[in-house]
Amino acid sequence: MKQLEVCLTPDLLSYYPPEGKTVVVIDIFRATTTMVTALANGVQSITPVATLEECQELQKQGYLTAAERGGEKPVGFDLGNSPLNYKKQDYSGRRLAMTTSNGTLAITRAKTADEIIIGAFINISAVVQYLQVQTNDILLLCAGWKGRVNSEDSLFAGALATELGAEVNLANDGAVMVHSLYQSHQQDLKTFLKKGLHFNRLLRLGRAEDIDFCLRKDVYALVPVYHQGILTAQPLV
Amino acid sequence: MKQLEVCLTPDLLSYYPPEGKTVVVIDIFRATTTMVTALANGVQSITPVATLEECQELQKQGYLTAAERGGEKPVGFDLGNSPLNYKKQDYSGRRLAMTTSNGTLAITRAKTADEIIIGAFINISAVVQYLQVQTNDILLLCAGWKGRVNSEDSLFAGALATELGAEVNLANDGAVMVHSLYQSHQQDLKTFLKKGLHFNRLLRLGRAEDIDFCLRKDVYALVPVYHQGILTAQPLV
Repeated sequence: MKQLEVCLTPDLLSYYPPEGKTVVVIDIFRATTTMVTALANGVQSITPVATLEECQELQKQGYLTAAERGGEKPVGFDLGNSPLNYKKQDYSGRRLAMTTSNGTLAITRAKTADEIIIGAFINISAVVQYLQVQTNDILLLCAGWKGRVNSEDSLFAGALATELGAEVNLANDGAVMVHSLYQSHQQDLKTFLKKGLHFNRLLRLGRAEDIDFCLRKDVYALVPVYHQGILTAQPLV
Repeated sequence: MKQLEVCLTPDLLSYYPPEGKTVVVIDIFRATTTMVTALANGVQSITPVATLEECQELQKQGYLTAAERGGEKPVGFDLGNSPLNYKKQDYSGRRLAMTTSNGTLAITRAKTADEIIIGAFINISAVVQYLQVQTNDILLLCAGWKGRVNSEDSLFAGALATELGAEVNLANDGAVMVHSLYQSHQQDLKTFLKKGLHFNRLLRLGRAEDIDFCLRKDVYALVPVYHQGILTAQPLV
């Protein structure tokens, strides 16, 4: 049986070595939701980078750029971190360079994994199907918020653990805890998340529509897969 | 209103600076349960130390010693980490030096706090009363297991958050999550904890009786308080 571990923040990643595993990077509000949406709406590839400078460097090479710091878009970039942006205009065939506070960093830190894929509520069934077909043990890596544990990524990790069900063994206490958390709140994610810090931070930034979109299930049937520094869409077979 | 934060492992403590706060150190299986039991059964004071060597040094000075590594008692110490040991013999008036894998380390790392106290299910009501009377913001510090998050310390943090109720604001997502976890499992802690790693590790070591004792509520009405490197019992007023 496949082992399923959950790492609640990248700061604890040293305890759950990604080597040989399939890692699902999770940043529900909003980086991984945005990545899935961008690829579903024509973006050809996403290059996650750690710094604003790297992102600007790729801009000079013709890349579309998306950047977020403190929930906002810094000056000089094409897009911020709202998934809804990618539905308003046609970015077909564009290569996107992206840097966010938490999500892109989590990808970079997991790069010794056998495989890295991107998960969000909007592609949850595609992720589940991907994980069922592949044979590696699984590590769910919550991007968290500036090193801290957060509710929304934990809840989504619990959703994946729940959907995978008897296919996996909950192999650490983080997995056991988030599984229970999702069991308790699956009928009403939003009421629970309203108690969390990031939900309220986004509300204050006027991002209520983003929140609603980030919590919708199965909007897109694709899985972003990270290979040689680039995310591309793997459609469901 | 007092702010209540939960830090799920000492590895994340840098995000929740203890300065000015009252920190409750939590290591349910078994260090903090053992500390409460020792002080309730006559031990005069407990000196938590980080290494076996420091513990042996104090042994030479006439201290009773308790040590645990990997769940077992290393050779040369008087006691291990079972709370039940302290009920079998009279240690009245003895000074105890103690080193364990997780619990004593957590205390040392929080030492810049305004106050450090020790919590366990066996003294939960005393801890709640202590926290109600004092006026600092509160940080619940789960000792975890070798840096990892664990179910039993998280669940107890949730129990404290629940008992404090409207007296506190759940000030980080860790607090929100453990509060929910306890809400879901308060009627049957053991069924939930059976899915956790440490529970099963202790079972394999033949420690079923310890587990049962560690999950009993309100056996003792005292709070161990840490001051100048030493824990002593503060009885309930």
